[in-house]
Amino acid sequence: MITTNPFDDDKLREECGIFGIWGAETASAMVALGLHALQHRGQEAAGIVSWDGRAFHAHRAMGHVAGNFDRDDVIRGLPGNVACGHVRYSTTGETALRNVQPLFAELSSGGFAVAHNGNLSNAMKLRRELVRRGAIFQSTSDTETIIHLVATSTYRTLLDRFIDALKRVEGAYSLICMTPEGMIACRDPLGIRPLVMGRIGDAYIFASETVALDVVGATFLRQVEPGEIVIVSEQGIKSHRPFAPVSPRPCIFEHVYFSRPDSIVDGSSVYGVRKRIGAQLAMENPVEADLVVPVPDSGVPAAIGYAQQSGIPFELGIIRSHYVGRTFIQPGDQVRHLGVKLKHNANKELLDGKRIVLIDDSIVRGTTSVKILQMLRDAGAAEVHLRIASPPTRHSCFYGVDTPERAKLLAAQMTVAEMATYIGADSLAFVSVDGLYRALGEDMREEGTPQYCDACFTGDYPTHLTDQDEVAPADQLSLLAERVVA
Amino acid sequence: MITTNPFDDDKLREECGIFGIWGAETASAMVALGLHALQHRGQEAAGIVSWDGRAFHAHRAMGHVAGNFDRDDVIRGLPGNVACGHVRYSTTGETALRNVQPLFAELSSGGFAVAHNGNLSNAMKLRRELVRRGAIFQSTSDTETIIHLVATSTYRTLLDRFIDALKRVEGAYSLICMTPEGMIACRDPLGIRPLVMGRIGDAYIFASETVALDVVGATFLRQVEPGEIVIVSEQGIKSHRPFAPVSPRPCIFEHVYFSRPDSIVDGSSVYGVRKRIGAQLAMENPVEADLVVPVPDSGVPAAIGYAQQSGIPFELGIIRSHYVGRTFIQPGDQVRHLGVKLKHNANKELLDGKRIVLIDDSIVRGTTSVKILQMLRDAGAAEVHLRIASPPTRHSCFYGVDTPERAKLLAAQMTVAEMATYIGADSLAFVSVDGLYRALGEDMREEGTPQYCDACFTGDYPTHLTDQDEVAPADQLSLLAERVVA
Amino acid sequence: MITTNPFDDDKLREECGIFGIWGAETASAMVALGLHALQHRGQEAAGIVSWDGRAFHAHRAMGHVAGNFDRDDVIRGLPGNVACGHVRYSTTGETALRNVQPLFAELSSGGFAVAHNGNLSNAMKLRRELVRRGAIFQSTSDTETIIHLVATSTYRTLLDRFIDALKRVEGAYSLICMTPEGMIACRDPLGIRPLVMGRIGDAYIFASETVALDVVGATFLRQVEPGEIVIVSEQGIKSHRPFAPVSPRPCIFEHVYFSRPDSIVDGSSVYGVRKRIGAQLAMENPVEADLVVPVPDSGVPAAIGYAQQSGIPFELGIIRSHYVGRTFIQPGDQVRHLGVKLKHNANKELLDGKRIVLIDDSIVRGTTSVKILQMLRDAGAAEVHLRIASPPTRHSCFYGVDTPERAKLLAAQMTVAEMATYIGADSLAFVSVDGLYRALGEDMREEGTPQYCDACFTGDYPTHLTDQDEVAPADQLSLLAERVVA
Amino acid sequence: MITTNPFDDDKLREECGIFGIWGAETASAMVALGLHALQHRGQEAAGIVSWDGRAFHAHRAMGHVAGNFDRDDVIRGLPGNVACGHVRYSTTGETALRNVQPLFAELSSGGFAVAHNGNLSNAMKLRRELVRRGAIFQSTSDTETIIHLVATSTYRTLLDRFIDALKRVEGAYSLICMTPEGMIACRDPLGIRPLVMGRIGDAYIFASETVALDVVGATFLRQVEPGEIVIVSEQGIKSHRPFAPVSPRPCIFEHVYFSRPDSIVDGSSVYGVRKRIGAQLAMENPVEADLVVPVPDSGVPAAIGYAQQSGIPFELGIIRSHYVGRTFIQPGDQVRHLGVKLKHNANKELLDGKRIVLIDDSIVRGTTSVKILQMLRDAGAAEVHLRIASPPTRHSCFYGVDTPERAKLLAAQMTVAEMATYIGADSLAFVSVDGLYRALGEDMREEGTPQYCDACFTGDYPTHLTDQDEVAPADQLSLLAERVVA
Repeated sequence: MITTNPFDDDKLREECGIFGIWGAETASAMVALGLHALQHRGQEAAGIVSWDGRAFHAHRAMGHVAGNFDRDDVIRGLPGNVACGHVRYSTTGETALRNVQPLFAELSSGGFAVAHNGNLSNAMKLRRELVRRGAIFQSTSDTETIIHLVATSTYRTLLDRFIDALKRVEGAYSLICMTPEGMIACRDPLGIRPLVMGRIGDAYIFASETVALDVVGATFLRQVEPGEIVIVSEQGIKSHRPFAPVSPRPCIFEHVYFSRPDSIVDGSSVYGVRKRIGAQLAMENPVEADLVVPVPDSGVPAAIGYAQQSGIPFELGIIRSHYVGRTFIQPGDQVRHLGVKLKHNANKELLDGKRIVLIDDSIVRGTTSVKILQMLRDAGAAEVHLRIASPPTRHSCFYGVDTPERAKLLAAQMTVAEMATYIGADSLAFVSVDGLYRALGEDMREEGTPQYCDACFTGDYPTHLTDQDEVAPADQLSLLAERVVA
Repeated sequence: MITTNPFDDDKLREECGIFGIWGAETASAMVALGLHALQHRGQEAAGIVSWDGRAFHAHRAMGHVAGNFDRDDVIRGLPGNVACGHVRYSTTGETALRNVQPLFAELSSGGFAVAHNGNLSNAMKLRRELVRRGAIFQSTSDTETIIHLVATSTYRTLLDRFIDALKRVEGAYSLICMTPEGMIACRDPLGIRPLVMGRIGDAYIFASETVALDVVGATFLRQVEPGEIVIVSEQGIKSHRPFAPVSPRPCIFEHVYFSRPDSIVDGSSVYGVRKRIGAQLAMENPVEADLVVPVPDSGVPAAIGYAQQSGIPFELGIIRSHYVGRTFIQPGDQVRHLGVKLKHNANKELLDGKRIVLIDDSIVRGTTSVKILQMLRDAGAAEVHLRIASPPTRHSCFYGVDTPERAKLLAAQMTVAEMATYIGADSLAFVSVDGLYRALGEDMREEGTPQYCDACFTGDYPTHLTDQDEVAPADQLSLLAERVVA
Repeated sequence: MITTNPFDDDKLREECGIFGIWGAETASAMVALGLHALQHRGQEAAGIVSWDGRAFHAHRAMGHVAGNFDRDDVIRGLPGNVACGHVRYSTTGETALRNVQPLFAELSSGGFAVAHNGNLSNAMKLRRELVRRGAIFQSTSDTETIIHLVATSTYRTLLDRFIDALKRVEGAYSLICMTPEGMIACRDPLGIRPLVMGRIGDAYIFASETVALDVVGATFLRQVEPGEIVIVSEQGIKSHRPFAPVSPRPCIFEHVYFSRPDSIVDGSSVYGVRKRIGAQLAMENPVEADLVVPVPDSGVPAAIGYAQQSGIPFELGIIRSHYVGRTFIQPGDQVRHLGVKLKHNANKELLDGKRIVLIDDSIVRGTTSVKILQMLRDAGAAEVHLRIASPPTRHSCFYGVDTPERAKLLAAQMTVAEMATYIGADSLAFVSVDGLYRALGEDMREEGTPQYCDACFTGDYPTHLTDQDEVAPADQLSLLAERVVA
Repeated sequence: MITTNPFDDDKLREECGIFGIWGAETASAMVALGLHALQHRGQEAAGIVSWDGRAFHAHRAMGHVAGNFDRDDVIRGLPGNVACGHVRYSTTGETALRNVQPLFAELSSGGFAVAHNGNLSNAMKLRRELVRRGAIFQSTSDTETIIHLVATSTYRTLLDRFIDALKRVEGAYSLICMTPEGMIACRDPLGIRPLVMGRIGDAYIFASETVALDVVGATFLRQVEPGEIVIVSEQGIKSHRPFAPVSPRPCIFEHVYFSRPDSIVDGSSVYGVRKRIGAQLAMENPVEADLVVPVPDSGVPAAIGYAQQSGIPFELGIIRSHYVGRTFIQPGDQVRHLGVKLKHNANKELLDGKRIVLIDDSIVRGTTSVKILQMLRDAGAAEVHLRIASPPTRHSCFYGVDTPERAKLLAAQMTVAEMATYIGADSLAFVSVDGLYRALGEDMREEGTPQYCDACFTGDYPTHLTDQDEVAPADQLSLLAERVVA
């Protein structure tokens, strides 16, 4: 089954987007708008939980925000001034509704909902200990581990129990929690996954990206800092920093591909960073050519940067269908090979006989690159020089990004020259790691204390990988395979 | 909204039916057939869990077995030689899918699925204690309490932990549990709810009623005894009796209305018992009349018994639509009063000018009786003598039967004479409690040690009602209101 | 695929029920109720057309009335004081929505909707002529032929064009037509299919059976006479008799099986007729036995009649599931043979060792009879004497009843003695043709001018069968195979 | 209800796309792919009809091609080597399935299916005449008029009857017809709507745009010429030209907005034409500015052309959500005003303090322009100069394009200066009519015999508008309001 999903199989995939609002009259409608703006961070399922001062209300659905959370009856079923939501893409193939966040539990302190962006790297080990002590998990999500740690903590106040729980987990987490006492937002000490704060009227908002603030008309205040816990309640807003300070390492791939170009991440415009990566590429790897052509849409900003730096004209040499947001399962085996162009079509009149600089954001498996190169050749391109706006992706991510196993990462298997041959490009070049850091405003990557998590490029993981190292796969989850049919 | 549900609002409603099979090649298909035969015990939702030797598989759905569990894809998704299932009607209005049984949990001993018919009378109290100790509940079902008690028991073997859990609960439970080590079936010490055993080939079956054995072609072996735990595994079948012996008190209303007439319950043919109740009614409350007419379909066996005993001809004076199994929401306010006859229509040619003995199984609120009497009058009946094949229903059930609060039970509010006037009958009589026991083959009800649970007639409850007595309603569940949309 | 459809494959099937109302405020809601009461006449699809004085509104749906026409939004979309509707079972396998009646056409005189119960026996021939002259058919329904004949008639008034059209068709038709000028109801000259008139307040109703009048609270006025055209309009009610008078021959099978027992057909109570057939059977074919057992539900009235006449007790020896109204597709090949009892289960305790008189309404293919006899044997019945409340069904119907081809009619292939052996009955007897007429109040069947259409028993068809005789099957419809997906 | 439909309410909307293939093994799968590539020409409904040498097969569905025609079961239900399909957007609000093309009729010559892009300007008048003579229409589509004219033509051969029919209609039509004898493709004498021919292997293809050839891997042969009838059959391919020759006038708006940029229309690359319009705009209406920003996605090619001509940098100042292909109904009244940014979001970091040239393809009502200008102002833009890549749209189209009534066309109500004030632009300019023709390779518009239909800009309609001039609206269609529910 070839599909036309805009975030195709040949990209790394961000797993989640989260959004919470405290103190707005139409809280759940705002969350729906915010999640729609974060839809690129997870297309598989979505959920919203609201709190009306007396009860919690939840709605979860497989599929997109539009079509599920734009219905009046759904929003009316989510009353209250406080709400949070989650969009997800699952890594594990576990697509059951019970895994759709926000997760909810009734603790002795009252209801507790949590939306999580990231991935814990010791969740399995903790889960085994908790089950041994009688805990019953309702999902296969690592997020539920946090809830059980809070539930069984021996501290007295909810905040202390929450901090106690966080101190036992390792990995990446940006969290938005709802309790009757207030909304809690926090980021792991390294700040691997993003989380920002905004304000609209008297209401406070937390969201994965600033575009979600834009869509609801809110003002961007600041990011939640790595290791910071922010609590919004009737008593106002408070900040806690319970962890020992460490040097933050936010995910660099948010800038390369995950975040929307109109977002501000780690203080920088994503569009601007991507243009600067393109300019860097042009400086590091110049080439004589007639046209700069992006692989749409993710390659466009870098292509504009490359064109402006190099003086070679920017042109739409590949046209992307408006309708790729929907999956198109190709009918019939015999026509399966025809379908590449459902998503992308070459602009033949433009390309015929031309020397092309083709810009893409990254190469994962390389399968799409092979098809696009072939399409450009069929359209008559004289030369195609492929330039990639990130370094070679050589390592898996364990912090909430869906990466193929290493054996399937093209750059883990081949040299750049081999890749060029495999893909069929006249030349192939990647931006350098230091070039990428320069586009982000740094002088270079500081060895030893790198400013970002760039493990997918460098293999330099900022935390232990306990589950990877200590838990045998056979010993991992053997949970129920659940199906729910409409 | 008036509906044509065959088990209308003016009946007590059994809440559940359960079915499990161990050792059959097409286990889940057998469960689907068995649940279909038990559909009258719960029309709201159904679920099946199977075990294929390595993993558990589950499917749950709102609605009937037919349409949900007769699909090849669903059955193929439930592989293995072991499976159990559940049909339910909910009492609480909580219709979320997460409450649909069998419930499942991953314990430290492995997967554990449970299907429960009955209701615990101290579940809330136990739940509050468990939550205080860090347990997280995934449903509002009292059944989940049992799972948490097993999970947190300090005994070593699963069987000992299971017995430990059962010793802490009070109320009615017939359970079928699936574990990797075997299938466990048990009944509470009083045997309030039914459970039978059957065999087909090398496979063992447990089911709420014998009709479920008939439908799959299995042989009826015996009932699971009150207080008995039966375990089927690779090591064969074993029986345990961990409870102190008490005098059993199975539910007498299974004979009056819940069970299908072709089932054998407590060793008696339900059809035969109902005919004998009808004969008893004729002896206790004779009347001169031209026709004996049942309220179809539940009044038919008693009406045949009454007719045979009295010599008055049995006639179908009320015709029941074939299509009442489907809910018909009456369109438009203006026609709402017209809809009585969607379900039942008077056979006017037959009734005109006649003296009628009308037989019904029970009176709960009396609302349907009023309409039926009016319909018979409109059809020209000269006299209508209403005879009820059970004693007056004066008390609520707390053991897994949906009863209106006492204030809505007609017999709790009026004398028999007042009821006759209210309903509009020329005369009204109920079978006596001793008459009912006689129809069951007893000489009479033994005061002090009655042979059945007849609390709905007598108010004599066989267990403590801890939650009723000790847990304030306001202090009860404040859980999440969850919605799932297809 | 074995199903539990209450009107199983081993019965003749009425194809349609129709209902129209003129002058009621909630016309379409009344039609929905009326169609629900006629649901037994067609379970495959339903449609309603209303007229609000300016525009026609239509709604059609596959499936039952309940679930489709009990929705407020549907009824609100069918405004006006005039409406008619149709339930259908299709004979041809053509289940496309475009065939769902009432059919509608915009004629030069304005809108024209028609609901038809029956079947024309020269529709194909007429259709070929019409297509040759440029007519474009939108359905495969024979009913559309009538509309084209009206549209292309050269007469001036709509009534004259309608009569002109009817004079060209042959076969069976009870019609309800809606035009801006009034509602037209008519029956073919032989009155093969039924049609009755009723009144509620100022509104007039036409319906296939009187039960549809009962359900809406209307009074039964009279039947529409064979060959009569009744027009209801602002000018009141008028009757026309444009056909040469012939001796009517209404369908006798309406009394045997099609109509509901609480309907009045041709002036007789269906329940009463069926009981008298049962009594006739007992007189014609007595047998010594312990119990009279009906095949539920259709055999019940005849069984009561048999029991009363013979003095042998009537007993429910076979229990019918409440849930057979829903199709249950048996999951898995291996369990397919187990499913007989999904619909009917033997009451073993009652039958064991007994001599049974088993009463069924008719035998078509005999497949169900074989299974039921086997089930009774398995339950321990000592003898089973099968008595059928109709003569042997030996001929196909061409007047709107779904009959298997003759080669599949058991009675067309075997003698009664052979049938008894095939079915496995100790004895088998059918009521005689004259006995059937006697149960209907006649002295006997009048040869030459029989009082009913009994062609399915006698082969004596009351009209030409032009399409059968003159149109080669290969030359018949080659229309579009249309699919509509939800 | 504000939606995020990519072709928003403030654009003219092409109504149809058509695709037919003759002689391919997987004909219907090819049609599905082709229609997906033409999805931008009609998102409301789609249909495919196939011919397997003996029977026609049809499938129609509301909604997109993806999700409806990418299912194996659907394609398997459309067997044969010949198939044609249609995507549509309806103008009239009549969204019933019966209007979804291809329409089909059984003529005396056999089956006849037709897919139509365009609109007849005398369909109503012809329809009234046909109904008066007894024709029964099944749809409200003007296309059906053609079928009835063919059916009732007195000529002998199908081709002669087809030509007879076409000679009686006036307006715009590109047609693909399927008959057992061959596939017929034709274009009206003026060639108002496009139609091209392609080839893959031995199969011939007809399609609205060349992108549909690209997606299936076919070679573009040539366009079907204005007034040409092409017939493909077992006997090969034949061309007929039955009409008196006139000077063609293809729709100029196909180049401005309707066609995909990667299509070749009237011999020109659409992308190239749009870039040249942008360059023309820059020459005709230069302005000092910092950035050229397109309204995505339709304004992008003209913006690139403007940027290259003017030397001002091209930048993505407005980011378009990937998910606007799905309708997002904004939940809750209170947040309705927030939703503009669901579709478009300003790239604030880039725009702040800058002078912007904003490029859009056209202005219809102006509502979207107002919102976008406000969004750019909010983002800090110092100046916004709006440049439109088409002349002012001042007249309705009657040839198959959904245009608002004239009173709602902003350019019909205001001068350009008034429009600039209304929209809030610092300056506003449109490309001139002659400039548009120059971008298409002409020297200028030839008055009297213009090379294109540009009636929406000039009011110079190339045909009579009979229905507009002669048929009173009240006298127009009063057909059935049909609803079909899934």
